[in-house]
Amino acid sequence: MQKLVDGIHKFQRNYFSQDQKLFETLVEGQHPLALFITCSDSRINPNYMTQTKPGELFIQRTAGNIVPAYGAVHGGEAATIEYAVSALKVKDIIVCGHSHCGAMSGLLNPELIEKMPAVKSYLEHAECTRRIVDENYGHLTDPEKRLILTVQENVLVQIENLKTHPSVAAAVGRGELKLHGWVYKFETGEVFNFNPDEGQFLPLEEDVLSEKALDKAMPPISPI
Amino acid sequence: MQKLVDGIHKFQRNYFSQDQKLFETLVEGQHPLALFITCSDSRINPNYMTQTKPGELFIQRTAGNIVPAYGAVHGGEAATIEYAVSALKVKDIIVCGHSHCGAMSGLLNPELIEKMPAVKSYLEHAECTRRIVDENYGHLTDPEKRLILTVQENVLVQIENLKTHPSVAAAVGRGELKLHGWVYKFETGEVFNFNPDEGQFLPLEEDVLSEKALDKAMPPISPI
Amino acid sequence: MQKLVDGIHKFQRNYFSQDQKLFETLVEGQHPLALFITCSDSRINPNYMTQTKPGELFIQRTAGNIVPAYGAVHGGEAATIEYAVSALKVKDIIVCGHSHCGAMSGLLNPELIEKMPAVKSYLEHAECTRRIVDENYGHLTDPEKRLILTVQENVLVQIENLKTHPSVAAAVGRGELKLHGWVYKFETGEVFNFNPDEGQFLPLEEDVLSEKALDKAMPPISPI
Amino acid sequence: MQKLVDGIHKFQRNYFSQDQKLFETLVEGQHPLALFITCSDSRINPNYMTQTKPGELFIQRTAGNIVPAYGAVHGGEAATIEYAVSALKVKDIIVCGHSHCGAMSGLLNPELIEKMPAVKSYLEHAECTRRIVDENYGHLTDPEKRLILTVQENVLVQIENLKTHPSVAAAVGRGELKLHGWVYKFETGEVFNFNPDEGQFLPLEEDVLSEKALDKAMPPISPI
Amino acid sequence: MQKLVDGIHKFQRNYFSQDQKLFETLVEGQHPLALFITCSDSRINPNYMTQTKPGELFIQRTAGNIVPAYGAVHGGEAATIEYAVSALKVKDIIVCGHSHCGAMSGLLNPELIEKMPAVKSYLEHAECTRRIVDENYGHLTDPEKRLILTVQENVLVQIENLKTHPSVAAAVGRGELKLHGWVYKFETGEVFNFNPDEGQFLPLEEDVLSEKALDKAMPPISPI
Amino acid sequence: MQKLVDGIHKFQRNYFSQDQKLFETLVEGQHPLALFITCSDSRINPNYMTQTKPGELFIQRTAGNIVPAYGAVHGGEAATIEYAVSALKVKDIIVCGHSHCGAMSGLLNPELIEKMPAVKSYLEHAECTRRIVDENYGHLTDPEKRLILTVQENVLVQIENLKTHPSVAAAVGRGELKLHGWVYKFETGEVFNFNPDEGQFLPLEEDVLSEKALDKAMPPISPI
Ligand SMILES: [Zn+2]
Ligand SMILES: [Zn+2]
Ligand SMILES: [Zn+2]
Ligand SMILES: [Zn+2]
Ligand SMILES: [Zn+2]
Ligand SMILES: [Zn+2]
Repeated sequence: MQKLVDGIHKFQRNYFSQDQKLFETLVEGQHPLALFITCSDSRINPNYMTQTKPGELFIQRTAGNIVPAYGAVHGGEAATIEYAVSALKVKDIIVCGHSHCGAMSGLLNPELIEKMPAVKSYLEHAECTRRIVDENYGHLTDPEKRLILTVQENVLVQIENLKTHPSVAAAVGRGELKLHGWVYKFETGEVFNFNPDEGQFLPLEEDVLSEKALDKAMPPISPI
Repeated sequence: MQKLVDGIHKFQRNYFSQDQKLFETLVEGQHPLALFITCSDSRINPNYMTQTKPGELFIQRTAGNIVPAYGAVHGGEAATIEYAVSALKVKDIIVCGHSHCGAMSGLLNPELIEKMPAVKSYLEHAECTRRIVDENYGHLTDPEKRLILTVQENVLVQIENLKTHPSVAAAVGRGELKLHGWVYKFETGEVFNFNPDEGQFLPLEEDVLSEKALDKAMPPISPI
Repeated sequence: MQKLVDGIHKFQRNYFSQDQKLFETLVEGQHPLALFITCSDSRINPNYMTQTKPGELFIQRTAGNIVPAYGAVHGGEAATIEYAVSALKVKDIIVCGHSHCGAMSGLLNPELIEKMPAVKSYLEHAECTRRIVDENYGHLTDPEKRLILTVQENVLVQIENLKTHPSVAAAVGRGELKLHGWVYKFETGEVFNFNPDEGQFLPLEEDVLSEKALDKAMPPISPI
Repeated sequence: MQKLVDGIHKFQRNYFSQDQKLFETLVEGQHPLALFITCSDSRINPNYMTQTKPGELFIQRTAGNIVPAYGAVHGGEAATIEYAVSALKVKDIIVCGHSHCGAMSGLLNPELIEKMPAVKSYLEHAECTRRIVDENYGHLTDPEKRLILTVQENVLVQIENLKTHPSVAAAVGRGELKLHGWVYKFETGEVFNFNPDEGQFLPLEEDVLSEKALDKAMPPISPI
Repeated sequence: MQKLVDGIHKFQRNYFSQDQKLFETLVEGQHPLALFITCSDSRINPNYMTQTKPGELFIQRTAGNIVPAYGAVHGGEAATIEYAVSALKVKDIIVCGHSHCGAMSGLLNPELIEKMPAVKSYLEHAECTRRIVDENYGHLTDPEKRLILTVQENVLVQIENLKTHPSVAAAVGRGELKLHGWVYKFETGEVFNFNPDEGQFLPLEEDVLSEKALDKAMPPISPI
Repeated sequence: MQKLVDGIHKFQRNYFSQDQKLFETLVEGQHPLALFITCSDSRINPNYMTQTKPGELFIQRTAGNIVPAYGAVHGGEAATIEYAVSALKVKDIIVCGHSHCGAMSGLLNPELIEKMPAVKSYLEHAECTRRIVDENYGHLTDPEKRLILTVQENVLVQIENLKTHPSVAAAVGRGELKLHGWVYKFETGEVFNFNPDEGQFLPLEEDVLSEKALDKAMPPISPI
């Protein structure tokens, strides 16, 4: 704990003055670029990996970057998403999984979480992930590959859950919000983006095209 | 979105190599110092304000740094807390509110969130905060003071909720876990710590004594 | 009630013998072609409109052909879907809305259901539909067109909810299950199918191509 | 799927014109005789077995014709019942179980549904049925008899659940709604009605007396 | 509070020795005659009004002697009932309402409980009562009569809810448990029992016939 | 049952007239001294042990004197507490456990309640108690001592849960409500009070000092 206290004083002495102007402007309100949903894992720092400044990322973090489907939990996830989309009008939501995720490891190995009823109960919102891996990836037996594949499939599953949130569905429908599925390999610094055209997670490229969103706006349908 | 993509490439080119060794070590597992619970607000960066490195802070972020009482929500909050305490054995939990919090503003001004049913529903877990401010602070009429006071009371309320989580209650009881209530004023860089002896939030001091925890271990009680 | 009793005796005297052989075979078990999800509305008869025999359609009917997202309701919808996919291995699920739907009318006109708290509460699972129509179809002012458009959008919303059910997600993923969105205009006998290529509901055509499913199997993704 | 598409075209070509007048009248609204609650089982066709026309039966179908008690599930069952009674003013509700029911089979043999958590969870609303059969019918060891008896007891249990729904309780109280418990043996075409005077399910008779309802109106009680 | 402390010392000095033998026997276990469900109201003392000794009545008390239907609340009511019936094998359950009940008053006058969300939410389990009184007793305009009538109807409604609890349904079915509906007028000392033959609450008579239970055992039904 | 009926007539003939005046006054309304929360156990009679008269104790009784945390259960506990504090303005709440408690015994020995799902589910609100005893009292092996210690810890746990109820938190904050933890040993007539200064349950003393509350009012905090 002393380390944290010392860190704060170091921040106050050496760093705060650099961003003081920015912080003072932000008193007026935040206008983040995106909602970034990731795991609580201590090895992930969204602002560091995206080199963003205060005010740029609205961040939701719970174990396993899980997004319960709308109505499944009247908890922080639904409220945070609704606030980001309806009040802050973010233009992008990134669901970002990561390598060596303990939550996903618990999903594959239930005995690891036997004594953790709250974790077990929360992982029911990743039951789609568990079943997809269990039923459709029988050929994948290497435990390491199986874990990272689970992380990848879970990102796609949570994006499906995200689409059931009313604020998201409406904004996606009119082209004002895009959804992105990422996986971060912290040990190599690589970030992979799900490319819907290829149906695969590919290294995030530099050009604008790399921003392939998972959802396109759906032009209004006509009454029959 | 392009800004985030560019930031990632900047991180990969210029910063990753600095921490590469650290990241590679962290493949073995994380051993964070503390669980840091704070708001999703884009103006807060827990790692920056505490000058911590990857692997040091397990971080939970939802709107309003709310911690529903145990059993109230089978969601990410309970799972994340349980995982931090039971699996990772963190020694400290910090609940950190912040100035100009939009969620607390919505709690004081329900008309702001009228069209956000998920936010409204989530704020029921801060109903203690609302009632305490409403019933016990009638004398505080200045809106700015009322908002920051609400942020402060909410930190204490969420710590009460935290104590109802079984993993927390048991670890606090045997002196292996301490709970801390902080408020971060991002516009001044100040951090205030609730000092239970004074019954007030005071600027975080440099010496170890400033670490007054909100919970002391309770020596075992004797069977009657 | 006497009419129903008379109808049963008429059925027993005049019709049962025709299908007796079929019914006796069905004692061994059912192998339905599809799960048909539609409204409880008395004007809809799924077997009549598809000219199917006993044993061919597994049928789920509640007000508004609503499918709460997985985890949102531990009720009949999730159980019926899971049983159809996991136990009966149906190959297709049709969500079929219909013209002049009272539930959708209540969604657009909350005053109609003010005194019906259970209906009101159930329509929260169509909140995506309400928001999409409210926010994205401001240009559509004709009440009749607005109602049928709501029926159409609701079919798509409920299919999104359907995808969050684990048995569905896994089976769709490996190409063993297809999802279809239909609207039935009972007053003309027309059936419209959502065509994902056109992004519109089009009259169901006779050739096989008309069966465009809403979901294609996703070939396995590769571990990164 | 092609079979369903072909069936629809057959319906449109050969049958729709017969009922066209009726369907056009029904645009004005539905006035069904009864709410018919039965299982999703593909071998049951309520309109066929009662020889009813479009507009005559409001139909609720989920696995096992289960009716969770009021407040137990904020799902389709409560909404459909409330809509039928409060908005459509049906005069009768029939809960109709059937022979060889897979849901009741799962209730007696939990190992059959071990891998179906949603079914398992839903069957908790038939826990009364399970306990009654388990505790009170120890003498009934023949599996076939045990299954049909379970179907019968479940019809009575779900009628008890039905009575906890406010719209039902109030309408039954003033004699405007009657509740009926039926079992349909599809392999013989027989329909059995619970006769409260005999305390047994008896073949549905032809005369009006066969309509013995399970609930009589209760004349108003006097304030003490 | 001092009054309670003094009362306890008075009890210890003057009364405990009278019942000491009884209390020592009860260390072996309790074998209560009945489960007595009544309101938390301070004016009711079940042991006093029935002149029962320690060990004779298992007592459940919450506001309004409400018994949520099975599955509606995973709370103390269901657990207490199950424990009384399954573990203690009580032979009778009495649901006892009372005159001048504040909870029932809140049910009739929602403005009284506008600021009490938990009370409001709990009274949803008496929504049957509210609707029955509202829809079927329009002729009863005198507020006092309307309140006591509401208390009476609520006793009957809660007994319907009680029947949805599996342990109760099974024990009632085999004649081992009887359910009784009482209303206690504390200002006169009168107790009224619902007499199902008369369909009215009548003063509790002295002879055994006064014990008319609300439920008779249902002889086993025969498989069809 | 006849015993209860006889008891009531005995009460009416021999005792009611003594308290008739009191009862008639109480028609105007109740003003109880305290809310007394205790177990449903038949061996406990709160009015007898505190020698209180009708109108003096508002009493909540469910199995195990459990108080689910706020929001965890929308049941009788939250409503009763809110009504006692907000409507009746009680000045004290006592949570009173007792020796030989069957619910606490079930918490320590889950096999005793294996067949009682509602009890099992309710005991999740005492999961803190279970974990504290399991993890922190390994040294206590004597089953009798372990049971009474569990009763003691459970009283403290339920008081923590109590503090999460908004009406309680606000009233405690301004010094208008005190919380007390008691254990009643019915076989000796002893009552033990948790003394926060000693951190132990001590015999309730006669002087005013014995009223040490578990919560002190917290003087208003200052906005930072
Ligand atoms: Zn992780
Ligand atoms: Zn905030
Ligand atoms: Zn409809
Ligand atoms: Zn069935
Ligand atoms: Zn009362
Ligand atoms: Zn007890």
